Amino acid sequence: MSKKDKKQKIYKPKPVSGFPEWLPEFRAIEQLWMDKIRKVYESYGYCSIETPSVEELNVIAAKGEDVDKEIYVLERLQADPDDKKDARLALHFDQTVPFARYVAQHFNDLTFPFKRYQMQRVWRGERPQVGRQREFYQCDIDVINVDNLPISFDAEVASICYEALDALDIGRVQLRISNRKILLGFLSALDIEDVVSVTRAIDKLEKIGEDEVRRLLTEEQNISDQNCDKILKLVTTKDIKSIEPLSDEMKEGLEELIFVVENLSHLPDHAVIADLSIVRGLDYYTGTVYETQLLDVPEFTGSVCSGGRYDDLAGNYINKHLPGVGISIGFTRLFDVLKDHGHIKAGKKSPADILMVLPSEDKRALATDTARTLRQRGYNVEMYHAPQKIGKQFSYAEKKDIRHVWIPPFEDGQAHEVKDLTQKTQNEATPQDWVMDK
Amino acid sequence: MSKKDKKQKIYKPKPVSGFPEWLPEFRAIEQLWMDKIRKVYESYGYCSIETPSVEELNVIAAKGEDVDKEIYVLERLQADPDDKKDARLALHFDQTVPFARYVAQHFNDLTFPFKRYQMQRVWRGERPQVGRQREFYQCDIDVINVDNLPISFDAEVASICYEALDALDIGRVQLRISNRKILLGFLSALDIEDVVSVTRAIDKLEKIGEDEVRRLLTEEQNISDQNCDKILKLVTTKDIKSIEPLSDEMKEGLEELIFVVENLSHLPDHAVIADLSIVRGLDYYTGTVYETQLLDVPEFTGSVCSGGRYDDLAGNYINKHLPGVGISIGFTRLFDVLKDHGHIKAGKKSPADILMVLPSEDKRALATDTARTLRQRGYNVEMYHAPQKIGKQFSYAEKKDIRHVWIPPFEDGQAHEVKDLTQKTQNEATPQDWVMDK
Repeated sequence: MSKKDKKQKIYKPKPVSGFPEWLPEFRAIEQLWMDKIRKVYESYGYCSIETPSVEELNVIAAKGEDVDKEIYVLERLQADPDDKKDARLALHFDQTVPFARYVAQHFNDLTFPFKRYQMQRVWRGERPQVGRQREFYQCDIDVINVDNLPISFDAEVASICYEALDALDIGRVQLRISNRKILLGFLSALDIEDVVSVTRAIDKLEKIGEDEVRRLLTEEQNISDQNCDKILKLVTTKDIKSIEPLSDEMKEGLEELIFVVENLSHLPDHAVIADLSIVRGLDYYTGTVYETQLLDVPEFTGSVCSGGRYDDLAGNYINKHLPGVGISIGFTRLFDVLKDHGHIKAGKKSPADILMVLPSEDKRALATDTARTLRQRGYNVEMYHAPQKIGKQFSYAEKKDIRHVWIPPFEDGQAHEVKDLTQKTQNEATPQDWVMDK
Repeated sequence: MSKKDKKQKIYKPKPVSGFPEWLPEFRAIEQLWMDKIRKVYESYGYCSIETPSVEELNVIAAKGEDVDKEIYVLERLQADPDDKKDARLALHFDQTVPFARYVAQHFNDLTFPFKRYQMQRVWRGERPQVGRQREFYQCDIDVINVDNLPISFDAEVASICYEALDALDIGRVQLRISNRKILLGFLSALDIEDVVSVTRAIDKLEKIGEDEVRRLLTEEQNISDQNCDKILKLVTTKDIKSIEPLSDEMKEGLEELIFVVENLSHLPDHAVIADLSIVRGLDYYTGTVYETQLLDVPEFTGSVCSGGRYDDLAGNYINKHLPGVGISIGFTRLFDVLKDHGHIKAGKKSPADILMVLPSEDKRALATDTARTLRQRGYNVEMYHAPQKIGKQFSYAEKKDIRHVWIPPFEDGQAHEVKDLTQKTQNEATPQDWVMDK
């Protein structure tokens, strides 16, 4: 069928807003980054799990109403009456709810403390914006235990998160850590009851500034000027050891926070700060909370990696007390924003170390055998596809970022040669012995 | 909050039929297998791409009607009037349509021949059965070129597919290869017009047997006994070189098939057979077609890995002639069926090489530092979480399949020791020098 025979209707596809995809040279970097994160997660003995992309709507909705609007539900295009018998399915919007459901469902088959990481796509039907996609990867790491989870894990997951981000070579990473018990204990000692509104206001401190937070607290929440001063003083305190606890809860929070920060002292100076203005919006955090900033990437606003401790993760699904602590890297957001601002250099278009020249049809078997030998020795080798002029074969290697071009003998009795396109050298070689320069 | 305070309603989650998930010890094997497949794909210089999980319904529907009933469409749970302006979105049901769309959309940014692999989940809303899930991984590899794609790639992708499956250690793998031009040319020489019905009948040969295919052809398709004999003789011929071509098309098909089989002669004897009864149901294949059998796993019926050549993949989306050839491993089906029949041994519950004993709270810094040193040397090290009796720490390592237990000095001046739980040995060691037995 030649091109001219076709009277086909062409549907020219456009990118779907909120659903990103990358060219091969950027996908190579995405994959490299995910491999690096996975390696750090595994180096601490956390195992991989994956859950289905969907959950029953009942499972997702068990969490609360705030997220409803972001949920995608599935329908079969050609639904039939049988479908009504099935539970309604929705794409998961995070990995915490599926993790909780997984732990509840497989409780008897897991060893606790259960340490897992999970690197999957999640979906939120929000209006897309820069850095806010509808489909994106998250790289989560959590540990969960029955009844009691030592505070040392709050330091461990922070350390893992730092190391994982540091491995990506994206400049200095700073973890900002707080403990919700401090602020909650403080507010309770001041007899302030509407803690949700107050924490929400404080959460905006960095974004809207101290004056505006003061206005929110005094005018909208009717908090006295005196109390407002106290609150703002607390959440901007740099030296947490100087804080006088006003209640047992506050004391516990301070002790936990000091423990966590001290157990991260092996990290560089810039890596960790205690910051009591970090409260995290989500209500299920009960102790340690984390946010993370990229100090050398001003374009990246907000937190690249967040999380915290929850007193009881899977209480909606199982009658067990299961405290946990975890952190999630907003992977696609990180990648997308950094790429958008030119902070990510394109990778290689091909994973090949070597392009194998095809001298002629007669030499195809020789070229194929040579490629096979090199592959068995651990090299990635792409075969050139046609016995074209050698200049054309070289320029293909250049276009695809393949560093070495292997030239099998064009005539019997000649030697193999390898050209290094980076070093601009060309030398004789044998497939059994050749070693690639790193 | 203690357990007894809670009066929470519990929603006990059930597995969602058709959406599998694995325990950590099987996820470890799934991940290992996917890593091995990826490694083989990359060793031939194929690059990774990923596409969004969704496509516009218009893009998917451009392919034909047969698949409509299997498609899941997305709806926002809280849809708003703005949604009507957006294109309707559907989860992809394979990776070929998204690949074609990707190539059309990014045509000017790709280097041809474009060689890519893609290992993602796909979704089909069929009724679940054993080995047929609604969400599953496929591992695809394809090459596509402008106007013309050398037949050598038909051998290359077959070789890659064999190697990838062989790397999984699942017994002998056999590729069955045919070329649709042979049968189509033959039918056309016999003046048989309804080739779709005939090829569908032949496709069932292995499943329903020769007598039943004969009945279908003669009674339902009104093909003469004589022609039926000829057809059945052709598709059961073992020696393809003995076949007399009746038309140019048939001759071309035979030459291509012989070329492909001869270019796979480096594989073991059982690995490749020419089998003219392989026709593949999908209409877009125009030349080589592949199916794959596991010779040592009788429980696995059907083809674990299939594909073929298509004359023009992306013609629905771009006014270019883009022939391609590719193969897809039905990964989850393979994994699921083999696991179900006990052919997959559980892997390790933890990726840790070493469990670090925590002797006491006083020695926490020492244990943490030792773990860090070992991690920097490339080992995966899990910290035990509490200074419990050492017997309890050992049994945790056993339960989690962690082979080595590292015992830091309980008292100052003592040496570090490492117990190998497999070899039942315990020796002194230093974190800077210790080397793990493979």
